[in-house]
Amino acid sequence: MAKLGANRWGKSAVRLSKVIRGDGADRFLDLEFQVLLSGDVNAAYLEGDNSRVLPTDTTKNTVYALAQDQLTEDLEGFGSVLCDHMLAKEGITSAEVTIRQRRWLRESATGFTGGGSERRLAWVRRDDAGMETIGAGIEGLVVLKTGGSAFVGFPRDEFTVLPEAEDRLLSTSITARWVYAELPSDTSATWESVREIMLQRFFDDWSASVQHQGWLMARAVLDEVPEISEISFELPNQHHLPFDLSRFGLEDKHTVFHPVSEPYGDIRFTVTR
Amino acid sequence: MAKLGANRWGKSAVRLSKVIRGDGADRFLDLEFQVLLSGDVNAAYLEGDNSRVLPTDTTKNTVYALAQDQLTEDLEGFGSVLCDHMLAKEGITSAEVTIRQRRWLRESATGFTGGGSERRLAWVRRDDAGMETIGAGIEGLVVLKTGGSAFVGFPRDEFTVLPEAEDRLLSTSITARWVYAELPSDTSATWESVREIMLQRFFDDWSASVQHQGWLMARAVLDEVPEISEISFELPNQHHLPFDLSRFGLEDKHTVFHPVSEPYGDIRFTVTR
Amino acid sequence: MAKLGANRWGKSAVRLSKVIRGDGADRFLDLEFQVLLSGDVNAAYLEGDNSRVLPTDTTKNTVYALAQDQLTEDLEGFGSVLCDHMLAKEGITSAEVTIRQRRWLRESATGFTGGGSERRLAWVRRDDAGMETIGAGIEGLVVLKTGGSAFVGFPRDEFTVLPEAEDRLLSTSITARWVYAELPSDTSATWESVREIMLQRFFDDWSASVQHQGWLMARAVLDEVPEISEISFELPNQHHLPFDLSRFGLEDKHTVFHPVSEPYGDIRFTVTR
Amino acid sequence: MAKLGANRWGKSAVRLSKVIRGDGADRFLDLEFQVLLSGDVNAAYLEGDNSRVLPTDTTKNTVYALAQDQLTEDLEGFGSVLCDHMLAKEGITSAEVTIRQRRWLRESATGFTGGGSERRLAWVRRDDAGMETIGAGIEGLVVLKTGGSAFVGFPRDEFTVLPEAEDRLLSTSITARWVYAELPSDTSATWESVREIMLQRFFDDWSASVQHQGWLMARAVLDEVPEISEISFELPNQHHLPFDLSRFGLEDKHTVFHPVSEPYGDIRFTVTR
Repeated sequence: MAKLGANRWGKSAVRLSKVIRGDGADRFLDLEFQVLLSGDVNAAYLEGDNSRVLPTDTTKNTVYALAQDQLTEDLEGFGSVLCDHMLAKEGITSAEVTIRQRRWLRESATGFTGGGSERRLAWVRRDDAGMETIGAGIEGLVVLKTGGSAFVGFPRDEFTVLPEAEDRLLSTSITARWVYAELPSDTSATWESVREIMLQRFFDDWSASVQHQGWLMARAVLDEVPEISEISFELPNQHHLPFDLSRFGLEDKHTVFHPVSEPYGDIRFTVTR
Repeated sequence: MAKLGANRWGKSAVRLSKVIRGDGADRFLDLEFQVLLSGDVNAAYLEGDNSRVLPTDTTKNTVYALAQDQLTEDLEGFGSVLCDHMLAKEGITSAEVTIRQRRWLRESATGFTGGGSERRLAWVRRDDAGMETIGAGIEGLVVLKTGGSAFVGFPRDEFTVLPEAEDRLLSTSITARWVYAELPSDTSATWESVREIMLQRFFDDWSASVQHQGWLMARAVLDEVPEISEISFELPNQHHLPFDLSRFGLEDKHTVFHPVSEPYGDIRFTVTR
Repeated sequence: MAKLGANRWGKSAVRLSKVIRGDGADRFLDLEFQVLLSGDVNAAYLEGDNSRVLPTDTTKNTVYALAQDQLTEDLEGFGSVLCDHMLAKEGITSAEVTIRQRRWLRESATGFTGGGSERRLAWVRRDDAGMETIGAGIEGLVVLKTGGSAFVGFPRDEFTVLPEAEDRLLSTSITARWVYAELPSDTSATWESVREIMLQRFFDDWSASVQHQGWLMARAVLDEVPEISEISFELPNQHHLPFDLSRFGLEDKHTVFHPVSEPYGDIRFTVTR
Repeated sequence: MAKLGANRWGKSAVRLSKVIRGDGADRFLDLEFQVLLSGDVNAAYLEGDNSRVLPTDTTKNTVYALAQDQLTEDLEGFGSVLCDHMLAKEGITSAEVTIRQRRWLRESATGFTGGGSERRLAWVRRDDAGMETIGAGIEGLVVLKTGGSAFVGFPRDEFTVLPEAEDRLLSTSITARWVYAELPSDTSATWESVREIMLQRFFDDWSASVQHQGWLMARAVLDEVPEISEISFELPNQHHLPFDLSRFGLEDKHTVFHPVSEPYGDIRFTVTR
């Protein structure tokens, strides 16, 4: 004899980002939601009757749809909005919303760093014939800007559906490795200045693509740090996809995004003197 | 003076699954692609001119579009197809395709396990007043079937866009934890038989939802293993989303999917006697 | 006014492996323990008085020490042994032990595979001048044998403390990538046979080091698969360190190990014709 | 016919931390090393002759041993020291050292935060009977201090080998979740002040144990934030183990540590009013 006990259903790992445009500076929210419901759904388990089972896909869509007008930095307030919305439905008897916010540090009016995975890299190779290479690098420096980048004028073929973007949110995790032609007297200070140059060019310079943004960073490093002879970049395009709200009959204000980890645009290049 | 050196662009972590329907049994491919191109794109870096930059989104779409008719278990052969397609474009001078295939073990005509993360769980709680609970469980038992599950008849509201599915691919990572009312004489043998019962019910029983599938598994365990008094399940719905090929003017044969890790449907329940 | 509520302490992520030597075949247990205690330790929180706080290091040592004679595949039974041991101490009022077992699949009398992370790899590089390279590989094929490998006769310097090992447990995660001089007619069948050759040589051949074991695998692949011109291996030595029980006054039977993820011996080589 | 090609060996994922004591403030280095060698070791592969194979365990020990006197923030300089040491050995023909440094942000003379994984948490539970719970939390706030914590006076049994520590490095990843009896008018500002209180108490207060440190944090939060009725902590003790240099005949200055991820002391408690 088997008897259904406590049960819940919903959607987890719902990732959502939102830009709150401001006069002097944009704010940026990067969130992950979990929404779990309970209700009178015994027939779904025992008889396969789904008439009370709100699809988890709908739960996910609701988070994006309500976020456009009602999500602010008061996360608890938005959690209450979501609970109210769910409890108003027939057959839902309880709702629990959990929101996790990733911290981004403000670096400029529209620019942010999202720390944590960042590493300073140093390497030395030497052989018994006296050959030596010394280099340094940075891995996992996560940056984001809420505008100041475009992607237009690209070739289109039968599989191209990407719209042109005159101004888009741009985010990447910078990995750069460079070679020292001559070792600086203070390697730590040099490393800090390379990091600073890259951040400035990312946040301050408008770009036409990830490639263009990367070139502006690489060129500035070579211009300003004479000891470096060569620098290589890997710039994964960490997409924040527009979430289309118009299919729900809503005006789409283009402030709500769906951040995705997979797949990512993969841009790699080397710049020499 | 800065000079652009070697450079490549493309898309990484492109996840694609494909069902190859067979007479006696389906085959199932679970793949991750990386496609990297090089070509005459210096102007993109130096001047922001994207006219030769095939968008990485197009590269991704190409993988899905060509997979429908040309992808088989000959992965190297499909890699060549992709290289040929890319090299036929103006301005592309080299292409590299890397494909990683996750192994799934056949368990039935349409059922597979995808091992690795699976753990046997045992736990004992005891206090100085003589109270004791002994239980066991399984975590991370990844299963997939290429059909034999539906999801229809669910309620629709203003944010519901999910189509009804009469027959769908279903995949989950089973986590189940149970309590022993009485300790079996051979806990390892009992654990193996619980695992076997769950796999059989997942692969052999048609279900109307994840909830329904879970109930059929839980009920069978309680029916067949008298020592267990209660069992709880967590069944994340690991979505393999249909990839819409009709927007490229192709007939969509519904064999090519986009597996996603985030978000996931989150189904949790307990069954008692 | 603050008041201490429910609290527990103990050790988590305690990794332990054990070889149970058998007549025909060894058994191998790969486990992770969590032991959480509660008791009368309010003074530790409020006054910094540790006289009732069993160190979590001791809890960890207890798991290893009792495992030597009392751990079998009856994990629940060993959980009870640990609970009894803890509850016999003054001031401990409850204990909870959770054990997670990783599954290894038997491949020979002393050999196992530990699946999950394994990937089949295929790659194709082509340029517009007609140059093409096609290769394949395997990543993350985890293997372990409970004997049949030695490491002796190595040079010693002022920082060498490693004892010589005439017969040791050996585990690695095989990553191998090879180049096809000529494409086989059935790339899937060829891949399966390379995999099989590597497993056979790992499980059946005695080796004097990881390097030696790798050479035996590589040479066999080149001997038996004429289409392959070159193969490269990465063989991280996934150490299972002997856990020294003699410091507790126990006879050390050399069956209990401490598996560690970091650091690892890093062996890489290429074999050509 | 098989021929050994390029090959290297060494140790990867060697984690080392070092405290550089200062007058006004300590500096703290958290590093991961990879050291790869090549040399005349063909006989090791082909004949199992290890007489030229420097054990990877020795390579690891060398990193710790030389770090005590020669490691500073000039990572490239220390990389050169390691290369020189390796190349001085007979039969080693090349060496490559790669060092990755995790960034810690200074918060006080001896206190640091190591960002990245930190998340703000908000949750709301509501049912159709009008019951509501609102709470917030912080997850993954990584902190470390180079002194100001002890662990002495604990009970000893037959498996206790842990030495008493009058002053030790302490690191944890704070997870705290609290319940609001009354919702603050500005939930974001309240969250920031809870975070600040926890950091202050961790960095400024001497503690006799993780439990004691946690109590001081919890009590201060309840004292200073009247809206919070209850707070729960999970404080994994992220051990930086002393690396014993005396076995190499070196004076051990107690500045070089081995950070380990597994196992960890697991401390959990709730504080109410």
